Amino acid sequence: MAGDSFGKLFTVTSFGESHGPALGCIVTGCPPGLELTEADLQKDLDRRRPGRSRHVTQRKEPDAVRILSGVFEGVTTGTAIGLLIENMDQRSRDYEKIKDKVRPGHADYTYMQKYGIRDYRGGGRASARETAMRVAAGGIARKYLHERLGVRIRGYLAQLGPYTLEPLDLDAVDSNPFFCADPGQLENLEEYMIQLRRDGDSIGARINIIASGMPVGLGEPVFDKLDAAVAHAMMSINAVKGVELGDGFKVIEQRGSEHRDEITADGFLKNSSGGTLGGISSGQDLLVSIALKPTSSIQKAGTTVDTKGAPAEIVTTGRHDPCVGLRATPIAEAMLALTLMDHYLRHRAQNADVQVGGRIGATATKR
Amino acid sequence: MAGDSFGKLFTVTSFGESHGPALGCIVTGCPPGLELTEADLQKDLDRRRPGRSRHVTQRKEPDAVRILSGVFEGVTTGTAIGLLIENMDQRSRDYEKIKDKVRPGHADYTYMQKYGIRDYRGGGRASARETAMRVAAGGIARKYLHERLGVRIRGYLAQLGPYTLEPLDLDAVDSNPFFCADPGQLENLEEYMIQLRRDGDSIGARINIIASGMPVGLGEPVFDKLDAAVAHAMMSINAVKGVELGDGFKVIEQRGSEHRDEITADGFLKNSSGGTLGGISSGQDLLVSIALKPTSSIQKAGTTVDTKGAPAEIVTTGRHDPCVGLRATPIAEAMLALTLMDHYLRHRAQNADVQVGGRIGATATKR
Amino acid sequence: MAGDSFGKLFTVTSFGESHGPALGCIVTGCPPGLELTEADLQKDLDRRRPGRSRHVTQRKEPDAVRILSGVFEGVTTGTAIGLLIENMDQRSRDYEKIKDKVRPGHADYTYMQKYGIRDYRGGGRASARETAMRVAAGGIARKYLHERLGVRIRGYLAQLGPYTLEPLDLDAVDSNPFFCADPGQLENLEEYMIQLRRDGDSIGARINIIASGMPVGLGEPVFDKLDAAVAHAMMSINAVKGVELGDGFKVIEQRGSEHRDEITADGFLKNSSGGTLGGISSGQDLLVSIALKPTSSIQKAGTTVDTKGAPAEIVTTGRHDPCVGLRATPIAEAMLALTLMDHYLRHRAQNADVQVGGRIGATATKR
Amino acid sequence: MAGDSFGKLFTVTSFGESHGPALGCIVTGCPPGLELTEADLQKDLDRRRPGRSRHVTQRKEPDAVRILSGVFEGVTTGTAIGLLIENMDQRSRDYEKIKDKVRPGHADYTYMQKYGIRDYRGGGRASARETAMRVAAGGIARKYLHERLGVRIRGYLAQLGPYTLEPLDLDAVDSNPFFCADPGQLENLEEYMIQLRRDGDSIGARINIIASGMPVGLGEPVFDKLDAAVAHAMMSINAVKGVELGDGFKVIEQRGSEHRDEITADGFLKNSSGGTLGGISSGQDLLVSIALKPTSSIQKAGTTVDTKGAPAEIVTTGRHDPCVGLRATPIAEAMLALTLMDHYLRHRAQNADVQVGGRIGATATKR
Repeated sequence: MAGDSFGKLFTVTSFGESHGPALGCIVTGCPPGLELTEADLQKDLDRRRPGRSRHVTQRKEPDAVRILSGVFEGVTTGTAIGLLIENMDQRSRDYEKIKDKVRPGHADYTYMQKYGIRDYRGGGRASARETAMRVAAGGIARKYLHERLGVRIRGYLAQLGPYTLEPLDLDAVDSNPFFCADPGQLENLEEYMIQLRRDGDSIGARINIIASGMPVGLGEPVFDKLDAAVAHAMMSINAVKGVELGDGFKVIEQRGSEHRDEITADGFLKNSSGGTLGGISSGQDLLVSIALKPTSSIQKAGTTVDTKGAPAEIVTTGRHDPCVGLRATPIAEAMLALTLMDHYLRHRAQNADVQVGGRIGATATKR
Repeated sequence: MAGDSFGKLFTVTSFGESHGPALGCIVTGCPPGLELTEADLQKDLDRRRPGRSRHVTQRKEPDAVRILSGVFEGVTTGTAIGLLIENMDQRSRDYEKIKDKVRPGHADYTYMQKYGIRDYRGGGRASARETAMRVAAGGIARKYLHERLGVRIRGYLAQLGPYTLEPLDLDAVDSNPFFCADPGQLENLEEYMIQLRRDGDSIGARINIIASGMPVGLGEPVFDKLDAAVAHAMMSINAVKGVELGDGFKVIEQRGSEHRDEITADGFLKNSSGGTLGGISSGQDLLVSIALKPTSSIQKAGTTVDTKGAPAEIVTTGRHDPCVGLRATPIAEAMLALTLMDHYLRHRAQNADVQVGGRIGATATKR
Repeated sequence: MAGDSFGKLFTVTSFGESHGPALGCIVTGCPPGLELTEADLQKDLDRRRPGRSRHVTQRKEPDAVRILSGVFEGVTTGTAIGLLIENMDQRSRDYEKIKDKVRPGHADYTYMQKYGIRDYRGGGRASARETAMRVAAGGIARKYLHERLGVRIRGYLAQLGPYTLEPLDLDAVDSNPFFCADPGQLENLEEYMIQLRRDGDSIGARINIIASGMPVGLGEPVFDKLDAAVAHAMMSINAVKGVELGDGFKVIEQRGSEHRDEITADGFLKNSSGGTLGGISSGQDLLVSIALKPTSSIQKAGTTVDTKGAPAEIVTTGRHDPCVGLRATPIAEAMLALTLMDHYLRHRAQNADVQVGGRIGATATKR
Repeated sequence: MAGDSFGKLFTVTSFGESHGPALGCIVTGCPPGLELTEADLQKDLDRRRPGRSRHVTQRKEPDAVRILSGVFEGVTTGTAIGLLIENMDQRSRDYEKIKDKVRPGHADYTYMQKYGIRDYRGGGRASARETAMRVAAGGIARKYLHERLGVRIRGYLAQLGPYTLEPLDLDAVDSNPFFCADPGQLENLEEYMIQLRRDGDSIGARINIIASGMPVGLGEPVFDKLDAAVAHAMMSINAVKGVELGDGFKVIEQRGSEHRDEITADGFLKNSSGGTLGGISSGQDLLVSIALKPTSSIQKAGTTVDTKGAPAEIVTTGRHDPCVGLRATPIAEAMLALTLMDHYLRHRAQNADVQVGGRIGATATKR
């Protein structure tokens, strides 16, 4: 199986190139009886959509999703859900001039070497355009998790280049183009992005994602710990180069007496572990953080080779995101939703009838 | 499928509890014709073995591995390879006194909630003892990768609590109990560990792993990028809370003009990406870094509850590693070997007959 | 993973209901560099298409397939191939009158019990209409197998109710609406089908499928023998209730001295085993035979219950195949192609560099 | 993944050669809380054991199974269950004389071609000896299905060469060495087998397996119909060349009005379909029938080639079953148990909270 599928029970399989006629995916394993409309999925697609602000790619795509199967009279039937988004603004002529060049920092070289052929129009399959289907499919998982289990997944921009941003007001995230929960810094971000565009350059970012209302018990021993599944999901997003759970890389300098989350009858006293113990969800908030690299498609000239190996210079003038992190929040949320949904079904398959007492639930510490 | 399997084509499935009679695994998909003896696997098992120095758990386990199938007249036959290690020094009576307590930072609570039952002897399935089988299975992958493809996988301790350690001499790694490549710091590490034990506390660590001699083309588009597979593999190791490829979290503050690895006819000018482009190996060194938390089994008293939810105090007096990072290097190496081997076979299945020119190989920059 | 996927490396995942807006599938794992157009797939789709003769359902569907991704400048790129067929002639009002009845011999009852909801229009997901996507996807496999490996897959109608049909002229199969290779019997079949329609009844059939030019070595030990994979593939086709390889059920009365296919330097002396030994292809022709039940959608009144459990009478007047076996030949061929393609890639992944002599190839007996 | 694993959620992965030191398997996904001892598994292993009567191979193997993990204080913990059986009576010197010959009807040729190497001792991995692990693992599934869901799985010898045997008394099956439920024919069978041994020949057989007390809803749409899963499971057993569900190949000559199982408020009027509708279990008895070929290891001289391709004569004098069907009943039962268990968990994962009325359960016709 090539890498176009995610999940073992709640499974998404996608197809589609940046400049092909359409993108699509098939979601299998969705429990029946979930109310579902295209509007439910469009909401998150609109959050990810290009052209929403002047700080992201100006490609004009409505990204209107169609549900082609698996929903009957407004509810899921339990059978495969086919989703389709047509590409409207392809402008593939933009790519003629770089078709013979190997763009540094892009998949051009590796796809060419792996397959002996590549669709050079906008990165083809390697384009972040495929993340639209992650968001569409993730919307189904998200709705189920929220309506049936009370899980809420929220992300925010935690750092943009030099600016560290606090999660002061998560409700503000959707009212600004940065997915920023630190409204006092918005002006700085605006100015930073304007200067960046003038410089013809790009910048990295950090996104944090939190799942609250977590069920206890998700994740499997050994190789499929929830941590591993989350890391896999996040690192599969284009441009992600680092993943942390809980205190992440800070644990290196922590002592055990400082790191371990002590427990009282009222719950955990803190959440350094980030919501898992032994790889299985503890009911605490799941805390995930990811690092996204700056896009390599910039207007500053760079050194490279052409497809025959001869030296060349490259300048990317197409429509690109100067900070891919700016549109990554709904994608990361979607990937977390898909991961949790899959592990919820895996857990339920094996342990549906387990009865336990002593749950430390009411006051499980969030942060 | 529960989480006991890793890999799609080169697959390891393992079993075994910390204090059960034995651990074992089955490796399937190994190409035939590889010379293989138990000694080949024992080498890495000995590097991971408990009791090797005074800084790690004093449990006495020879960890002698037996090959029960899949090898005939000294070479692999292509059929399933069964491996077995018997547990010798179980001392499970140590655990009687904590069987009714929920150890903070451990899987006690989550296993109990997930399954309604748990093997409380030394963490049962959640014990890091299972990593012995990762190392054994990884040894097969490692041998194939090295002998057939020229891939070399090496790890080292990059940070121990406050001490940052440079990869000055990778050949020194196996001659000290810290897997340290920075010999000038050995004395500091010794003293630090002695003091830590006196304190009855534990500490986190960072391990870096490098694969050199990499084939180009490993990894799949979209969800199974090599980055994602590596992140999954690493985050599945007990105590790992963060994973980075290449520049990792440093990319957040990088600009595109700084991050992108420019290309000349002689190869890449640097390796910020850490060896993948678009999720597929570029032939550059694969650069991986992981953070391991301090173990929660320490002698400092902590607050917790018992299995009935009543407040309790816990002190762990058993045989434990004060820094789980100290034995993690061969485990991380093994997981990287398993990941690369699996992706090599996946790549070969689809692309065995692809012919390409223009490989940037000879001088692909390593770091 | 629900049952919408087939194959481990060359994988088809499909969606679509009989009366939804469209059917589609995603094919992953296809090797790059294969020339592929929609016309290549349309050929077999036309063979399966409804309305081709008066003996099959009169639903009018052009079944025009679109390739939405994975093909660039006329060749496969190695990335996911999205295929789509729009439903044109849905007439779902036909189904209003049976929406509250449980049709005997159909999936109505079981889908209702499994999912608590069902799309009653023409069987929804359980309709044989989904087999269009098997044929489309199978066309890709078939083309690869034929062009790269020289494998040829041909099926024919071997029995229609009381008429046993010999494979006298396989080239005649596509020139009559029965996929019959026994031209002398065509008149009998015509008359039989006319009388059957007058009776308002349906009939079962046997289809045989042969793969010639087989590579040696396809199939895996133990659970994934090629025989098992073929049986899985065939039994997944709607209405199939029996599968045989080689001599099939006749082996019950055979002695070992009669059954075993003796070997000479020139090849096997016969082919009772049907092309596999120990579950692995021997290079002989692969001989498969399947039994298809008569459709339960007939005009003769039958006894049943309604969805509330009350007694009811049912008569099916819609557009149905009086012999589902008549259109099954291209479907069975497609499933065999998908099976062989998947196993070819699995075999190549593990054994790409195995060198052997002594192949019994030149004259491997076919029948 | 090579073919050593079966099942997606309740998964068995096995290893072991006929003449290696041991056989073993790992069962993952077993729900926690099931009481389980080695004696529970030994029961079926003893039914399959060689040397039980003079009509089967005289190899002396106690086949004593050890549980190495996954069971704590007498109940399953939900973690991986490791099982091990040591080979005691290997006598591999028997095979020296045939090591250079390609036995007709055996996997010698295909394994050699596939892997370039083979373990010639008793067929190595291709030996039916691996079925011991199927029976051991199947015993766990069987116990769960029976205790938790009330499913009962029983098989019997339905035909031995020319003798057709009726299921007159299923309780008699375990009191004779033929798994025969038709006691009046035992004497014929005895005589037939004695004469067969005198002839130095072997014979085929038919085994029927029935699962009663079936839950409704097992099986998935499209490719993973329960029929397909059962066919896969059965056809993976050594020597099986045909599989039927319900009326099987008889459906070819049936009319729809005859085949369809009509329904009344009291249940189905008959069971031609064999317990599935649209690939999903209906609650009726699951009726499966399989054909096993005669073993090719016989004392009658046969024509073959040696491993260099030169003509040779072969006579097999080792310890072999003159009718492999005689020991196949517990193996087929085990495979059915594994299939149903896996599909029960798959169904529960997706549909655990589906509430439906109108179940036709009380009087679902069995035959």
